[in-house]
Amino acid sequence: MVQYQATLNRTFSALADPTRRDILERLGRGPATISELAEPYAMSLTGLKKHVRILEEADLVSTEKIGRTRECRLGPEQLEDAARWIEMYRSYCDRRLDMLEGYLERKKGDRK
Amino acid sequence: MVQYQATLNRTFSALADPTRRDILERLGRGPATISELAEPYAMSLTGLKKHVRILEEADLVSTEKIGRTRECRLGPEQLEDAARWIEMYRSYCDRRLDMLEGYLERKKGDRK
Repeated sequence: MVQYQATLNRTFSALADPTRRDILERLGRGPATISELAEPYAMSLTGLKKHVRILEEADLVSTEKIGRTRECRLGPEQLEDAARWIEMYRSYCDRRLDMLEGYLERKKGDRK
Repeated sequence: MVQYQATLNRTFSALADPTRRDILERLGRGPATISELAEPYAMSLTGLKKHVRILEEADLVSTEKIGRTRECRLGPEQLEDAARWIEMYRSYCDRRLDMLEGYLERKKGDRK
């Protein structure tokens, strides 16, 4: 359970930055080197590497040194846990709305 | 688009803490005061209020002062955007796996 919580912490933290979400979307179209990933940003390679490391620690990205470059691709973590957690939270919201709807229906009935 | 990114940043940041996810799960069962929320934790009221404020800033929780207490309930943000983003990311992963599968199938064919 502690491990599950730690994974969710790392996943949601990693997703809380627009550059990191961008990188994941870019890697969804195929592997890329650090320099290729850095291209669209006015950012130092060091800055970009920091983002990649955070994604790597969350298992959202994996990297491999090939010659003098480092190739990045989507990692083993498929966001299943994060999606499941959000699903559970949404079912709470739905239930709450159902209860509210039921209450309003009853109120309407009372008025007749 | 900038607004959408800022919302995602706030939502994912808010979800990156186990106490805050706990609070959302607790509020899914119905509204609660700050003191009621604080009960299960070895945490000062000040510490808990800080978590509630972060959830409030992300619109995940709304609060109302009633007499001397502050009542908290689930807020207007239904995590739709966060869920949609994760869904989109997952479809990238699926496509990548489909391509890999296709490649392996072709390889198998070549061997025959």
